[in-house]
Amino acid sequence: MDKIGLIAGSSRFPINVAIAARKRGVSVYAVALKEETHPELEAAVDKICWISIGELGKAVDFLKENHIKRAVMAGKVRLSHIYSKSVKPDGYLKNLLTKAVDKRGDTLLMAVANFLDKIGVRLLDCALFLKDDIVKKGALTKIRPTKEQLADIEFAKPIVKAVAQLRIGQTIVVKDKAVLAVEAMEGTDEAIRRGSCIAGEGAVIVKMSSPKHDMRFDIPLIGPSTIKTMIQVNAKTLALEAGRTLLIDKEELIKLADAADICVVGI
Amino acid sequence: MDKIGLIAGSSRFPINVAIAARKRGVSVYAVALKEETHPELEAAVDKICWISIGELGKAVDFLKENHIKRAVMAGKVRLSHIYSKSVKPDGYLKNLLTKAVDKRGDTLLMAVANFLDKIGVRLLDCALFLKDDIVKKGALTKIRPTKEQLADIEFAKPIVKAVAQLRIGQTIVVKDKAVLAVEAMEGTDEAIRRGSCIAGEGAVIVKMSSPKHDMRFDIPLIGPSTIKTMIQVNAKTLALEAGRTLLIDKEELIKLADAADICVVGI
Repeated sequence: MDKIGLIAGSSRFPINVAIAARKRGVSVYAVALKEETHPELEAAVDKICWISIGELGKAVDFLKENHIKRAVMAGKVRLSHIYSKSVKPDGYLKNLLTKAVDKRGDTLLMAVANFLDKIGVRLLDCALFLKDDIVKKGALTKIRPTKEQLADIEFAKPIVKAVAQLRIGQTIVVKDKAVLAVEAMEGTDEAIRRGSCIAGEGAVIVKMSSPKHDMRFDIPLIGPSTIKTMIQVNAKTLALEAGRTLLIDKEELIKLADAADICVVGI
Repeated sequence: MDKIGLIAGSSRFPINVAIAARKRGVSVYAVALKEETHPELEAAVDKICWISIGELGKAVDFLKENHIKRAVMAGKVRLSHIYSKSVKPDGYLKNLLTKAVDKRGDTLLMAVANFLDKIGVRLLDCALFLKDDIVKKGALTKIRPTKEQLADIEFAKPIVKAVAQLRIGQTIVVKDKAVLAVEAMEGTDEAIRRGSCIAGEGAVIVKMSSPKHDMRFDIPLIGPSTIKTMIQVNAKTLALEAGRTLLIDKEELIKLADAADICVVGI
């Protein structure tokens, strides 16, 4: 593989993908979203095309012009954009939204993947270049979970799996074997804040993906910002599904967690 | 039945139970919670015993002294009290909390029911005196759901049933076949606000109970305050499970909804 497309959403995830790919000698051609993508991506890639979320056609032209046959999709795109009046979908995107059976995140991502496939671009596992940053089993931090926290994690596992399988969200917040918050479209950090606001200190956060999760996109991921949210609200335990969760800026994340006596554990 | 106990939580629900029971010639002996119960309950019952949430023993004494054999439990008790430092559980309540396998709402309510049973008080269906206020199938308001809203309700039904069966919560907020918010411990109105904040206008709210729901307590209920929340955030559609949802202050609720062009429908 000498070059790859990168469909870039928010956070440092696409930047990390670009850096890792270029380290392996692969050229990176990025489609970046004005509403989402970090401007620093520009310096990390070989070529970049900035589009607004509505402008799918422009992305198609860029990928075709540069003869891109394989691509990785990295970083979130807030689904709430589809309710925003400032986003003007072009003909391609309108067609894609009209054909979608519902507007769940994974339905729309799959629609984008199928669309790319039709124009000759195959989407690959988004963690392809970042295998070292996938969570492994066991504690990643100095602090390990207590017996009580482990009991809360065991309580939460089947619930968060079911919630993920219903394609609602991938995170729940528990304490003392009660479900305090379930993530839907508002995002992980907001769910952590809500649950911790009820729990006071010591909420336990558990993140898992659906058993049917398509690893080409929307892989569960955690970055330093989640640890910062946990610090703000005094949450102490973060359990992540091993083998299926990606850490963004892993070293910084673990350093932050260790400094705040937060336990991050792969389950 | 010449007399009944009433374990009273928040809202006007226990007041409506007391009024309806006394209309049928049944005397009402209420255990009221200082942290939850509306002071107006006092005028609507024959005898009242005000306790703090921690003082289960006081409630036992009151029920025994008045020879209460049957009781109804009406109105919410915020589960978050168990995390509050101001609540001091007495020996009875400590014992009950220690024995409970988890701290889900229905686990604790069942534990209270079993506890009452042991002291000779049988808990009855909480809607016993309010059968006319149970939601029936079809629109309760002048406005009926549109084709799009009906499609969103159909989309939501299996999801909210599954969420209820997981004993997370009974309400979800959807729009254009996407799940915007799932209720956990924060309560219905907060979930409606959160979902509507993402959806802008026109969120669809669907409330259903678990198939295994114990109708003695925590029956899904909607009062005028939920309609007021919907008005604030421009939500227009409220779908409620027929036969299993109770309307509090039904006439006022429907009047409010009609005045705001809100559709309330039994499904």
